[in-house]
Amino acid sequence: MQYLAHIYVSYKPSVLDPQGEVIKAALHRLAYQNVREVVQGKYFEVRLEAADEEQAVDDVKSLTAALLINQNTETYHFDLQAVPEEG
Amino acid sequence: MQYLAHIYVSYKPSVLDPQGEVIKAALHRLAYQNVREVVQGKYFEVRLEAADEEQAVDDVKSLTAALLINQNTETYHFDLQAVPEEG
Repeated sequence: MQYLAHIYVSYKPSVLDPQGEVIKAALHRLAYQNVREVVQGKYFEVRLEAADEEQAVDDVKSLTAALLINQNTETYHFDLQAVPEEG
Repeated sequence: MQYLAHIYVSYKPSVLDPQGEVIKAALHRLAYQNVREVVQGKYFEVRLEAADEEQAVDDVKSLTAALLINQNTETYHFDLQAVPEEG
């Protein structure tokens, strides 16, 4: 069975997000004074084969920890959906 | 009224995603042969003041086009939620 995971990675609240501050300042210069806060993170779509949803969840958690995030500074959340077989 | 937008930016399907290919190859080396495809993109959380939801949607669309994406190679989608006043 194929599954599609959307993984959203952002800095932990305790970690300064310099990129977000830079973008906010640029938006203010472009007349978007109504913008209060900007957080920038990474976004992954991972398509994978798995025997069932439980296996897919386990794989997503372990591959994310192994390669997609810096566990010291970043946190993540994800959603998962089964992908119907084509044809 | 305050609104929180989640903006997801990824490459247009027609554009090669070298970063996604690199990550897929690395996951295969880490024994995740069941991964079929990886797409990497950017993820923004933007908190902004707006008179109403319609104004917030307009602002999110225009600030995204103005600063957050490369309109030639990237596409985006977003969701928006009203943020209850604190206190």
